Amino acid sequence: MATTATNRRVILKEYVEGYPREEHMELLRGAEVPLRLTGAEPAGSVLVRNLYLSCDPYMRPKMSRPLRESYTAAFVPGDTITGYGVARVVDSSDPRLAPGDLVWGITGWEDYSVVTPPATRLLSKISHHGAGEGAGVPLSYYTGILGMPGLTAYVGFHEICAPKKGETVFVSAASGAVGQLVGQFARLAGCHVVGSAGSREKVELLKTRFGFHDAFNYKEEPDLGAALKRCFPDGIDIYFENVGGAMLDAVLLNMRVHGRIAVCGLISQYNLADGEKDAVRNLAAVISKRLRLQGFIEPDHKHLYPQYEAWVLPYIRDGTLAYVEDVAEGLESAPKALIGLFHGRNVGKQLVRVADDE
Amino acid sequence: MATTATNRRVILKEYVEGYPREEHMELLRGAEVPLRLTGAEPAGSVLVRNLYLSCDPYMRPKMSRPLRESYTAAFVPGDTITGYGVARVVDSSDPRLAPGDLVWGITGWEDYSVVTPPATRLLSKISHHGAGEGAGVPLSYYTGILGMPGLTAYVGFHEICAPKKGETVFVSAASGAVGQLVGQFARLAGCHVVGSAGSREKVELLKTRFGFHDAFNYKEEPDLGAALKRCFPDGIDIYFENVGGAMLDAVLLNMRVHGRIAVCGLISQYNLADGEKDAVRNLAAVISKRLRLQGFIEPDHKHLYPQYEAWVLPYIRDGTLAYVEDVAEGLESAPKALIGLFHGRNVGKQLVRVADDE
Repeated sequence: MATTATNRRVILKEYVEGYPREEHMELLRGAEVPLRLTGAEPAGSVLVRNLYLSCDPYMRPKMSRPLRESYTAAFVPGDTITGYGVARVVDSSDPRLAPGDLVWGITGWEDYSVVTPPATRLLSKISHHGAGEGAGVPLSYYTGILGMPGLTAYVGFHEICAPKKGETVFVSAASGAVGQLVGQFARLAGCHVVGSAGSREKVELLKTRFGFHDAFNYKEEPDLGAALKRCFPDGIDIYFENVGGAMLDAVLLNMRVHGRIAVCGLISQYNLADGEKDAVRNLAAVISKRLRLQGFIEPDHKHLYPQYEAWVLPYIRDGTLAYVEDVAEGLESAPKALIGLFHGRNVGKQLVRVADDE
Repeated sequence: MATTATNRRVILKEYVEGYPREEHMELLRGAEVPLRLTGAEPAGSVLVRNLYLSCDPYMRPKMSRPLRESYTAAFVPGDTITGYGVARVVDSSDPRLAPGDLVWGITGWEDYSVVTPPATRLLSKISHHGAGEGAGVPLSYYTGILGMPGLTAYVGFHEICAPKKGETVFVSAASGAVGQLVGQFARLAGCHVVGSAGSREKVELLKTRFGFHDAFNYKEEPDLGAALKRCFPDGIDIYFENVGGAMLDAVLLNMRVHGRIAVCGLISQYNLADGEKDAVRNLAAVISKRLRLQGFIEPDHKHLYPQYEAWVLPYIRDGTLAYVEDVAEGLESAPKALIGLFHGRNVGKQLVRVADDE
């Protein structure tokens, strides 16, 4: 067995303004790295072989020059990009993890990563995969339905929005990693759910695979407010917000009294400079309709993951929940895959396969 | 004793665009009205002599042509303007109320009003005034600290914002009917509270009468964000929103993680046409700081009034709470007094004395 390997890695070359482009990132061939911990790492470090990497919208704000605080620190030009992924433990000085274990959590955009404390705290052992109890659950799902996007959808819909049977739910970016799950969770909760997406193909997917009661292509709607009025003649009880901007403004006018808005993402705004961000002007509806807007991020709710996993696994196994992934092949395709998110090129959850699980 | 009286009334002449002006309203000399119910009114009606009328910002949206639903129906041109007031019952077919009773609730901008069901449900009997238990509480307070604005401040601060001792609180329109109370409630709750207002006189009032720890005149601040940063170097936990627009945008960037925003009013926006409303562009902070924005209106929380009244009365009686009113004399002064709200001409709670309590 080899004792070293060539470690390729993707770095951020420079801070991004506007839309990210491939030249903002670079794949470095990298050096030979040892396939075990050298002892020079902080105690509790874990060496992993990365198998799947997740492309998520929140990564874009981290690529901007850090002008103000964010909930995640900005990337540093020259450093390896980090994000959620699925990996196999190669060596470990963390007593929770042993070589051979599968984990999901924050790792690097590279072949091998040394994850050091405190980031190791976010590495969760995967116990429901393979030939045992979890047979039939693809490992890649831990970048999505069984990972951060899954818990995001669960917390945002069930905890933040507190849905009641018969309520109306609108989901934007509805075919994405989180949106496709929110739509299905809403259907399971007995809600009437409508989604928006950016192509006819995605709209079809919403209606045929994900069980949305209705869906529309926002790019083909000259008047978003009219589209919402058509889909929700009596108004929207719950809006799961993934996009922001003009869609939020239109939704505000179509909410019902005591409506709830879970603010999960604002992908339409991430590539705009501060002065260019879309104006939201209809906030008077927040008072007249007594709306609640609640921002949230998944790391605040990690303690709910076991509860979520136990709830969602049976639905995955028995086929109740559909889940669509868009898999890019190879670490070298990661920058383009990430960039594609901001142009709506992905269909379903965007991820990158770095290596087969040997 | 006279059996009829001349009833003057203030009508809305036409729907308002932009700032309301005196010519949008008119004082009609009116007709002789009987000083008892005629029997032609709906069962449960109450005839009252109006004593004090309240001028409140929410009345402005009701003066616009009703293009969309609001939580209060629009005024109708030609009809008497309605609003909160304090009145003496003259005659009653409501078993809860007898001639001579004092009430507060929704009444008309006129000398005498016939209040019909279901509006009579909102007439609350005043039991804590005069020589008895409530000695020393001015009747006019039932348009403010003991009325709708008082309950608004209580619900918005204590119920919606759930303050904790030591938290930082920012209040806009802080010398107004609601703001002056929120500031004092925050101080009582052990919070650090800062207010903004539109004149040096008001800023002095905040600091010297209402116990705000600090205050600033927003008209003298070229950069609202910098003013907030100066007053809250470690950020804002709670924002009590009365104004909207540019102030909200600046506040969003200065909120702390898990901050709460009670959206009570947006007075800076009420006189702007739809297309002119100020843009709010910093909503990304709702996610990065996991903020909660909650709109609310007092009528949803009427059931808390007895609890609020019992809590606040001792503080009024023992002088713990200061309360400043701006009293206009006579029904004929009501239009000008209401208009003044939108130019910040009032200092403290704006009300109109229609008649002394005979």
